[in-house]
Amino acid sequence: MVPGFRVGAAASGMRYRNRPDLALIAAEELVGVPAAGVFTRNRFCAAPVEVCRERVEKGLIRAVVINAGVANACTGAEGLALARGMTRVAARHLDTSEDAILVASTGIIGQQIQLEPVERAMTELVASLRPDGWEDVARAIMTTDTVPKLAWAQVGIAGKTVTIGGVCKGAGMIAPDMATLLAFVCTDARLEPHVLRHWVREGADQSFNSITVDGDTSTNDTLLVLAGGAASNPPITDRVSEESVRFGRALSAVLLDLAIQIVSDGEGATKLISIRVTGAPDRSSARAVALTVANSPLVKTAFFGGDANWGRIVAAAGRAGVELEPERVALYFDDLCVFRGGTPLKGDRIEAEATRVFSQKEIRVGLDLGMGDAEFTAYTCDLSYDYVKINADYRT
Amino acid sequence: MVPGFRVGAAASGMRYRNRPDLALIAAEELVGVPAAGVFTRNRFCAAPVEVCRERVEKGLIRAVVINAGVANACTGAEGLALARGMTRVAARHLDTSEDAILVASTGIIGQQIQLEPVERAMTELVASLRPDGWEDVARAIMTTDTVPKLAWAQVGIAGKTVTIGGVCKGAGMIAPDMATLLAFVCTDARLEPHVLRHWVREGADQSFNSITVDGDTSTNDTLLVLAGGAASNPPITDRVSEESVRFGRALSAVLLDLAIQIVSDGEGATKLISIRVTGAPDRSSARAVALTVANSPLVKTAFFGGDANWGRIVAAAGRAGVELEPERVALYFDDLCVFRGGTPLKGDRIEAEATRVFSQKEIRVGLDLGMGDAEFTAYTCDLSYDYVKINADYRT
Repeated sequence: MVPGFRVGAAASGMRYRNRPDLALIAAEELVGVPAAGVFTRNRFCAAPVEVCRERVEKGLIRAVVINAGVANACTGAEGLALARGMTRVAARHLDTSEDAILVASTGIIGQQIQLEPVERAMTELVASLRPDGWEDVARAIMTTDTVPKLAWAQVGIAGKTVTIGGVCKGAGMIAPDMATLLAFVCTDARLEPHVLRHWVREGADQSFNSITVDGDTSTNDTLLVLAGGAASNPPITDRVSEESVRFGRALSAVLLDLAIQIVSDGEGATKLISIRVTGAPDRSSARAVALTVANSPLVKTAFFGGDANWGRIVAAAGRAGVELEPERVALYFDDLCVFRGGTPLKGDRIEAEATRVFSQKEIRVGLDLGMGDAEFTAYTCDLSYDYVKINADYRT
Repeated sequence: MVPGFRVGAAASGMRYRNRPDLALIAAEELVGVPAAGVFTRNRFCAAPVEVCRERVEKGLIRAVVINAGVANACTGAEGLALARGMTRVAARHLDTSEDAILVASTGIIGQQIQLEPVERAMTELVASLRPDGWEDVARAIMTTDTVPKLAWAQVGIAGKTVTIGGVCKGAGMIAPDMATLLAFVCTDARLEPHVLRHWVREGADQSFNSITVDGDTSTNDTLLVLAGGAASNPPITDRVSEESVRFGRALSAVLLDLAIQIVSDGEGATKLISIRVTGAPDRSSARAVALTVANSPLVKTAFFGGDANWGRIVAAAGRAGVELEPERVALYFDDLCVFRGGTPLKGDRIEAEATRVFSQKEIRVGLDLGMGDAEFTAYTCDLSYDYVKINADYRT
C-alpha cells in the first residue's frame, strides 16, 4: 500500500478470456499529483507512449489506465486516437480532465485497442479501486510473465516515514512483440517535480536500463512514478540535499528490485546472472562491455548449459568496442578468478569450482578491465530451449 | 583449381581422431606472392591472427598453414611462440623463410596448439600438395560445419582468363568458442599489392562483414587472399581501371558466395534470410538497421517458427540508433508489402501470402526507410532449438 493511492483491476475481454486485463492506479488527491516517466527509445514508439510523453511533465496526473493483450503499437493515427479515447473514458468515470490521465498498453504489436470493452469494464474498474489492490494490478498487466511482480520500500525523510511501492511486468520484455516492459511506482513522498524527474532518470539507468533478456527494445516500454505527498514530509526541493539522496536511494532500490524480478522471469529463463564490470576507464565503457556480454547468445546458452565457458565471456567483452588490453583483464565467477594476464588459470580444482558456480540459480560474473575506476552492473538471464519455443510462434 | 597454387591436408591427431585437421595452401612461386588479409576486430585476437597481421603486408607469402580443433586464442606469450613455431615447421619443410608463412587456427579458445603433432604430420601434409586438393582443404578446416564450403569464379582480364577460388569455414562463426570464420582465397591474377588490398577490403565489407549468425565476433576470424600471377595478364596497377573493377567484382562474388554458404550452414540454421535495407540516408545507417534486424533473437526465432511477424522486424529497426520516421518506412517479404505509412497492411490475403513466404527455405526481407538512396544487405539465419543445443554445452 502507498498512502494516497488506490488501485484496482477488471476484465474487459478485449483479448483474454476469464482474466483481468485492465488496471487503474489513481491518486486520491483530486487535483492530481506530480509524475515522471522514462520511455522506450525505439523510433516505432507505441501510441500510449506518445500520449504519456505529451502529458507526464506538463501537469498533474490523476490516474494511469493500463491494458494487457493488445499493444496499440504501429497503429497509426487511429491508434493514437484510441489511446486518447481510453484516457477519455477513464477521465469521465473519475470526473477529471483527459490530460490528467496517463495510459499504457502491452501485448501484440499492430493490433489496435477497442474502446467498447474498455467502456463496458470501466465502472467495475473504478469500483475496484482500493489501497491494497496492488497484486491485482500486478496480475492484470501480465502477458507471458509467469509471476506477478511487486516491490516496496520505506525510508525516513525528515521524521516522516515515506513509502515507495509499485509493480511491473516484463518477460517478453525486450521482446517487442510482447510490448513489453511496463512499471508503475507510487510514493507518498512530497517532492518537487524536478527532484522526482532526476531520481526517476537515475534510478531507471541503474535498474531497467541495466537489464536485458534478449537485447530487443520494445515499442511500449514505460516506467511511470507518481508522487502523491500523503507522507506530509517537508517538501524536498533541493536535489542534492541529504533527504533527497535518501529518497533517491530508496527509489533506486525499488526499481532495481522490480527490474531483477523481470530478468528472473525472462522468457525461458532458468538462471539470473549479474555481469559486474569494474576497472573501466569510464561508465559508458563499463556499460558497453557489461551489456555486450549480457546479450551474447553464446554466453547465454553456455549459462543455460551450465558450461563455465570463460572463453565466450572474454571474447564477447573483446568485441564491445572498448579498447581493452587483454593482459590487464581478469574474470571471476562469483569469487573464483578464472582468467588473468591474457590467459586462463588452469587446473582441475578451478574447473571443478567453476562448474559448481555455474550450477547455481544465481551467478555473479566479475570482469575487471584493469584500466580505471568506473563500473557498471548488468543483469541478464540464460538462453534456453524455452526462449526459442515461446518466441518461435508467439502470435498463434 | 587456381593455377599457381597447390593445396593439401593431413591429420595430426592434435584433437580430432581419424580426420584431417591440418591444411596447407602453397604458392608454386618459390619467392612467394602478394597477399592481403582482413582480421577479427576483437580485442582478444588469437595468436595466429597476430602473426598474420605482422607478416601479410610486409613481404611476399609462400604458404598458409591451418589447423582445426584448437584455436590457440587467449593463450598468452606461449601461444604466440607456438603460432610462430607452427610457421617455422612449415617453412623448414618448404625450404623458405618463416616470415613467408601465414597461419590460422580454429577450435576451442584457451587451448594451445601442440607442435609435436604438427611436426609429425608435416611431411605428409607437404606431400599431399596438389592443384586439385581444395575440397580436402575445405574439409580439414571444418569444426561444427556440416558441409565443406568452396567457391570459384573466372573473369577475362586483358584477354587472359583469371581464376579466383577458395574455401571457408564458419558454422560456429561468430561463435567465439568455435573460433570461427576462416576463409582462404587464391587467384592467378597479376596485380599490385595495393590493388589487391583494396578489393579484399571492399569484398569483405560486402560479404563476410554483412553476415551474422549470432552477432558474436570470433577471436580468430581471418580472411586471406593470395594473388599468384600465373594468369600472366598485364599487371593491374591502377585501382580504378576497368580491368581492376572487373577483378574486384569477381572477387566480391566469390567472397559473397562463401559468406552465404557460412550463413546457410550456421549453427542450427534451417533458413537463409537476406535483409535488404534501402532508402537510407547513408550506408552506415543502412548497415546498422540491417544488422540490428539480422541479429535480433526475436526476429530470428520468428523466422524459425515460420511466423511472418512484421512487428518484430520494424521494432528491431526502430532501435538501431537511426533516426527513422516510422510513417516513411515500408516493409516487404519477398515482393509482398506488409507495412507502410506507420501501420500494417491488413487482410487475410496478405497474411496468407506472408505465411507462405515465411515457409520458404530462403526469404528476402526488404525494408525501405524512405529517407535517401543508400542501401545495405545483411544475411542471417534463423534461431532454432538446435542453436541452443549446439551451444549450451559445446565444450563437453
